[in-house]
Amino acid sequence: MRAARLLADADIVLHDALIHPDTLLLARHARLVDVGKRAKGAATDQRFIDRALIAAAARYRIVVRLKGGDPSLFARAAEELDALAAAGVRCEVVPGVTSALAAAAEFKIPLTRRGVARSVAFATLRQRHGGDAQAPALPRADTLMLYMARCDAQGTQQALLAAGYAGDTPVVRMANVAMPGATLQRATIATLNALSEPDPIAPVLLGVGATFADVSANEQQHATSVAPLRACAR
Amino acid sequence: MRAARLLADADIVLHDALIHPDTLLLARHARLVDVGKRAKGAATDQRFIDRALIAAAARYRIVVRLKGGDPSLFARAAEELDALAAAGVRCEVVPGVTSALAAAAEFKIPLTRRGVARSVAFATLRQRHGGDAQAPALPRADTLMLYMARCDAQGTQQALLAAGYAGDTPVVRMANVAMPGATLQRATIATLNALSEPDPIAPVLLGVGATFADVSANEQQHATSVAPLRACAR
Repeated sequence: MRAARLLADADIVLHDALIHPDTLLLARHARLVDVGKRAKGAATDQRFIDRALIAAAARYRIVVRLKGGDPSLFARAAEELDALAAAGVRCEVVPGVTSALAAAAEFKIPLTRRGVARSVAFATLRQRHGGDAQAPALPRADTLMLYMARCDAQGTQQALLAAGYAGDTPVVRMANVAMPGATLQRATIATLNALSEPDPIAPVLLGVGATFADVSANEQQHATSVAPLRACAR
Repeated sequence: MRAARLLADADIVLHDALIHPDTLLLARHARLVDVGKRAKGAATDQRFIDRALIAAAARYRIVVRLKGGDPSLFARAAEELDALAAAGVRCEVVPGVTSALAAAAEFKIPLTRRGVARSVAFATLRQRHGGDAQAPALPRADTLMLYMARCDAQGTQQALLAAGYAGDTPVVRMANVAMPGATLQRATIATLNALSEPDPIAPVLLGVGATFADVSANEQQHATSVAPLRACAR
């Protein structure tokens, strides 16, 4: 609600590429500027965004930098906050719903589950352009959510096995979470590369861990809303 | 906003103990029932909550189960969803802002940071009543957020060291995040037990990792909003 109020008051909104259209409608009288970086499209350079924010702050009264998901996770917020602080620009950070939690709600699959999952980790294998060739080691948690997980099923599989996850660990691949046309596909780490790729611009989130073993039951419940979950659970 | 609309429409709200008063005000005409479990107070049994939800669904048109933070993380949502499904009660899950992300926004400390933190884990050392005596192993991630972290600084210290975190890893202890009177204290894993305990009913969140090394700079920026962050960073 705080974010909605700020959008309603904003004079200019610098936003990511994949924002729900209903969210942009909240910025009633703002100038909208798409500064989104796409996985394989024309990337907007981070320093360009930093400079655009500072320039906007000099010119407009209320500037909103709107990100998909939560700004504190995989959103380069540290670089933008550092640049704003260095330029003497006052700002506040409004938390959001990160896609791992949006997905958990949308598909009714809690990320923690008594006796099954007591810890959750968020990570990504995505390399920044011109970054280290070496992918980082993945954290080992009961539930692992991999962001920006569209490409390279084989590399993902290898990274998961290298981090100590068993080949038969349940995996769900979710695309377009919290957007129109969200989808979920099931696999295990071993069968991951048999999944078909979702549409080429959809953001993809991979869920890994025993909590996803219940997915069919939850999906069924999602559809019918009356099937007893226990009877379907593996 | 979806949560606010549901609260406005709700006939009854079964809520946790520590909900911001402004949030409860959104439930304009609902009967409010506190089913909160407290760390050391009188615990409301989980099965009682499950039964109360099912009974409320039989009697009222719109029932809201309101949790602090996000329902998919450390919130026993799986048990409630299973109970509702078994009873044939239709429901939807609305995601929320989990306290780790609320804290990151409030103190302007992103949980990921280029070159410093590429993975984040959420865990807790809290044991359920009558549960295993053995605390679970903590995940090893660049940033670790420990929920329900009020008690037993020494046990926390030992669990962190056992999981492979170095003694000089920066730690922040945050209390009353996203509530009136939020506080932040700084330490390292080695100096954790020198921190004073916050007030006895405040929810406490522990942040562990190099991203918190910048806290003094961010706090200063929080206060003055003009200090260049780079100049203060360690």
